[in-house]
Amino acid sequence: MDAHKQLTLGLFGFGVVGEGLYKALRLTPSLNATIKKICIKNPSKQRNAPDALFTTEKDELLYDSDINVIVEVIDDSEAAFEIVSIALKNGKAVVSASKKMIAEHLSELLELQQTTGESFLYEAAACASIPVIRNLEEYYDNDLLHSIKAIVNGSTNFILTKMFEESLDFKQALILAQQLGFAESNPSLDVEGFDAVNKWTFLLTHAYGIIDNPNNIVFTGIQNIQSSDAAVAKEKHYHIKLVAQAQKLSNGKVAAFVLPQFIKHEDHLAFVRNEYNGVVIESGFADKQFFYGKGAGSFPTASAVLSDISALRYGYHYEYKKLYHHKPNELTHDFYVKAYVSFDDLKYVPRESFEWIEEWHAVEDRKYLIGVIHFNELLTKSWWRENRVSLILAPEPVIEDVELRKLKKKSLELAGVI
Amino acid sequence: MDAHKQLTLGLFGFGVVGEGLYKALRLTPSLNATIKKICIKNPSKQRNAPDALFTTEKDELLYDSDINVIVEVIDDSEAAFEIVSIALKNGKAVVSASKKMIAEHLSELLELQQTTGESFLYEAAACASIPVIRNLEEYYDNDLLHSIKAIVNGSTNFILTKMFEESLDFKQALILAQQLGFAESNPSLDVEGFDAVNKWTFLLTHAYGIIDNPNNIVFTGIQNIQSSDAAVAKEKHYHIKLVAQAQKLSNGKVAAFVLPQFIKHEDHLAFVRNEYNGVVIESGFADKQFFYGKGAGSFPTASAVLSDISALRYGYHYEYKKLYHHKPNELTHDFYVKAYVSFDDLKYVPRESFEWIEEWHAVEDRKYLIGVIHFNELLTKSWWRENRVSLILAPEPVIEDVELRKLKKKSLELAGVI
Repeated sequence: MDAHKQLTLGLFGFGVVGEGLYKALRLTPSLNATIKKICIKNPSKQRNAPDALFTTEKDELLYDSDINVIVEVIDDSEAAFEIVSIALKNGKAVVSASKKMIAEHLSELLELQQTTGESFLYEAAACASIPVIRNLEEYYDNDLLHSIKAIVNGSTNFILTKMFEESLDFKQALILAQQLGFAESNPSLDVEGFDAVNKWTFLLTHAYGIIDNPNNIVFTGIQNIQSSDAAVAKEKHYHIKLVAQAQKLSNGKVAAFVLPQFIKHEDHLAFVRNEYNGVVIESGFADKQFFYGKGAGSFPTASAVLSDISALRYGYHYEYKKLYHHKPNELTHDFYVKAYVSFDDLKYVPRESFEWIEEWHAVEDRKYLIGVIHFNELLTKSWWRENRVSLILAPEPVIEDVELRKLKKKSLELAGVI
Repeated sequence: MDAHKQLTLGLFGFGVVGEGLYKALRLTPSLNATIKKICIKNPSKQRNAPDALFTTEKDELLYDSDINVIVEVIDDSEAAFEIVSIALKNGKAVVSASKKMIAEHLSELLELQQTTGESFLYEAAACASIPVIRNLEEYYDNDLLHSIKAIVNGSTNFILTKMFEESLDFKQALILAQQLGFAESNPSLDVEGFDAVNKWTFLLTHAYGIIDNPNNIVFTGIQNIQSSDAAVAKEKHYHIKLVAQAQKLSNGKVAAFVLPQFIKHEDHLAFVRNEYNGVVIESGFADKQFFYGKGAGSFPTASAVLSDISALRYGYHYEYKKLYHHKPNELTHDFYVKAYVSFDDLKYVPRESFEWIEEWHAVEDRKYLIGVIHFNELLTKSWWRENRVSLILAPEPVIEDVELRKLKKKSLELAGVI
């Protein structure tokens, strides 16, 4: 696409994001981009745009040679993938906000970009208004990225904030989130961590060149977190956040997961409250960088789509530098984590899953322990996901092999076993 | 420069940043960049690098056709400008960290880039490890940028934090900053705001396409701030920060300055403590974005230089989109600010400089008032810079013309004048 070319857009979807984008485009004439046609599913709905713009025939957009950019902000991930595939094959650049589709079809989308040479941009799919993909891609483009730790889901963060700051229980907080529009009426995609792990799947590609299936990344949501867990966190001067984390180990492999985590007050992520998102990037020499902003909502998402559209005017495309120009890093499950586990009854928590246990609290109704687990246990076992158990990682949870042996020896000595 | 080309560097300066860069480059072989020669002033100093690398002859670097990138991290801004000019004219890309040089020679540097077509990158010159220039240039590249508000000087922020949190007076805090290496032995460049306004000069170019002389931007530092000012701030639940701010007014012109400012606890900039830097970008639709990280020091600065070097492998250059591809915004002094002014004696504060005065506190030793001033007063008068007076802007200080008339009328009515 020529630099500063006039962009003619075909838009799929006119929900909150689609309509937000339509309004935003009208307010930014400098972008030199106009929507020619909008494809929708239900033609009978009343919409705040001229009738002539709408169609239910996707081919009217996908095979219109005037349209050089397809913007896709629909909910159905399989339909979205079909649209994106055809558009790229037809020589159109594509901007998408469909995290689920991108996570599930990552390899195919990479191949489509390589074979067609067309731009496929999706900054809006992760952390909305925070330019996290662009910065991982362009600024942290070398092999110095030590770790990235993020709050990528606003709904769960809102619920946790309310549980924590206003002592609501999970259900009350969820209802409040739904009332305020921060959670869907069917909230399980957010609450159980699916949304977060989808985003994490392709952020790992931009951060480390990792291409993996979301199923291979250990994750859960916040569905099992109890008020009593929040109380323990407060006692220990911690917050609880649903944290997506990736960390390069000393062997060069990457530990990555999306799990609830205790966060110290002074941690940058403690600053991220309510429906906001935040990303902490630790790179060699640069210390920690913190990016913060709105992670969802009509206009924040539309603004990310706008920035992608704007970048298309200059022919921008992701180079996936960590994947194609460096030796990509490999995902590993061979490390340990320190975790807090609460439960009604010890029978739900297999003692043998733990390398060792540091703390026991068996007096209260809701009991808990703090111990060290090999991460493979979390990948292969499911006791820790059951609704009678809640697992929350300790701050700085990752423990490497060598380190572990030292700690274990010390702990056994202390216990008088040796 | 071809994509992924081998980079051969000529480095000017081997102080803390230069040496940090030398070490960092050895730890990132993937960058495919090697230092061929390092130009220094004093050959007799002991240095942690092979003798054969060093020279005192700048032409050995500037006229070596093997060297395709000049990295310049020296202190002397006139010498730096000469180096950069010759390097660009000789067909070399240049990476620089010299904020003073860039601020003072901005127009010439823009022209040199246009005539030579060579890349001139300087991410390290503002906020070190925070990629602020790159994000303003690439991500906030449209005309939706409402405001940018930043803490761009770590030394002054460290001093203010200590005055505020540990109730040190200015001198004690400065000495502590010097002991810890966060302030120079001659601290006036930092303390009196010169460093901050230099950075602000070219950040305004990337944010709004403004090219102006640092002298035309109203600024001061923190040299006049008293412990009593910190006490008033605390009483009002404010912090005091040296804030660089730029804000688009409703007439499309931009209000910009670097001045001490009261900051509310919930403001993102209140999170920025000690030697850190932070940037809050407010753009249409995206709400507020917050970027935070280390703004100075050997490795954070070296990491920004590294990212620039890395970008050169892909032929990256700044496009100055706001300047060349949009209608550039214009700097204005035609607006009002609400300010707190403290003083020993009222005779140092001309009553007629104020549109009106909202608060008077004349009981204490150190008196203060809060009032509204036309910004041109600050540009043309100097009473507010004198060392018997300290001026600190109110939170959300900028008041536009129309708004003012309404407020003024209301205030006069309240005073019973009308």
